[in-house]
Amino acid sequence: MPKRSLNLAKAYTLLEPGPVVLITTAHKDRSNIMTLSWHCMMEFEPPLVGFVMSAGNDSFELLKASRECVINIPTVDIAKQVVSVGNSHGSKVDKFAAFGLTAKPAAQVKAPLIGECYANLECKVVDTRLVNQYNFFILEVVKGWIDTSVKKPRTLHHRGNGVFMVAGEVLKLPSRMK
Amino acid sequence: MPKRSLNLAKAYTLLEPGPVVLITTAHKDRSNIMTLSWHCMMEFEPPLVGFVMSAGNDSFELLKASRECVINIPTVDIAKQVVSVGNSHGSKVDKFAAFGLTAKPAAQVKAPLIGECYANLECKVVDTRLVNQYNFFILEVVKGWIDTSVKKPRTLHHRGNGVFMVAGEVLKLPSRMK
Repeated sequence: MPKRSLNLAKAYTLLEPGPVVLITTAHKDRSNIMTLSWHCMMEFEPPLVGFVMSAGNDSFELLKASRECVINIPTVDIAKQVVSVGNSHGSKVDKFAAFGLTAKPAAQVKAPLIGECYANLECKVVDTRLVNQYNFFILEVVKGWIDTSVKKPRTLHHRGNGVFMVAGEVLKLPSRMK
Repeated sequence: MPKRSLNLAKAYTLLEPGPVVLITTAHKDRSNIMTLSWHCMMEFEPPLVGFVMSAGNDSFELLKASRECVINIPTVDIAKQVVSVGNSHGSKVDKFAAFGLTAKPAAQVKAPLIGECYANLECKVVDTRLVNQYNFFILEVVKGWIDTSVKKPRTLHHRGNGVFMVAGEVLKLPSRMK
């Protein structure tokens, strides 16, 4: 199913439930993928996201140099690849080729979209004040893509040490909150 | 079931999956509860958590004045109360009494624990650099409590506009990540 452009006002609905995400980065002739769970919405519009990317990752240098990335949101059907990405180092292996993930061109950043993820958020770094102390980057989502055929995405949520919760049933409650 | 003291090294396993939480605050003779989903682990040990609490909430002033709060983690059995807390204002109603939630004394902060939540994290504010611009507070978890009889907590995860995903099945995958 081809993806549609995402209304950016809806970006928070994808990240707020806390899914494990795959971050893609690119700079010059290098690109990489890493898994990440420590992220947080910070503003609805324009959508701002904060995340912790520890300095030990190869992706950290690519993100610092390019100031761009894509937040790709996987579902349980590619759980094995998600874990394999987290278990390997970009300096030693081309993770796209090794794990059968498809790099597709993004619209506004050089980092690639992962075709197998049901949604992709193209981001630019907008605030690095907390990077030195906490490895915490603040990014603006500048473009999004979504496979609208996925109605109840079975996202992965990490409980630590390889234990993942898979998104379950959906409830509608009379909340007045956005 | 009485709660046990939580090993603080495990605090991340409770927040990393992205549950909706109830924040309790207290200052002088006032206390309050609010719902919040924009939070993020920032360090394993000592556990650091960042969250966005918008300045329009009554809890914002209590948090700024006391520099303490409790992050209480509810499950689907109290989903109605969670939504009711989010739909009401602490200046107009005592949310504990109105929604049948039990305030219990915490060990290291003045804000109360919510008895009906399966886990509670007592927190102290440690960094306010990003409060003016983003309403983003960084807190250290100084004490935690958990009902260890809850093996697979059916936490709530907000998808926006009153749509909640409930934590589903649990997968164990051979991740080398903490």
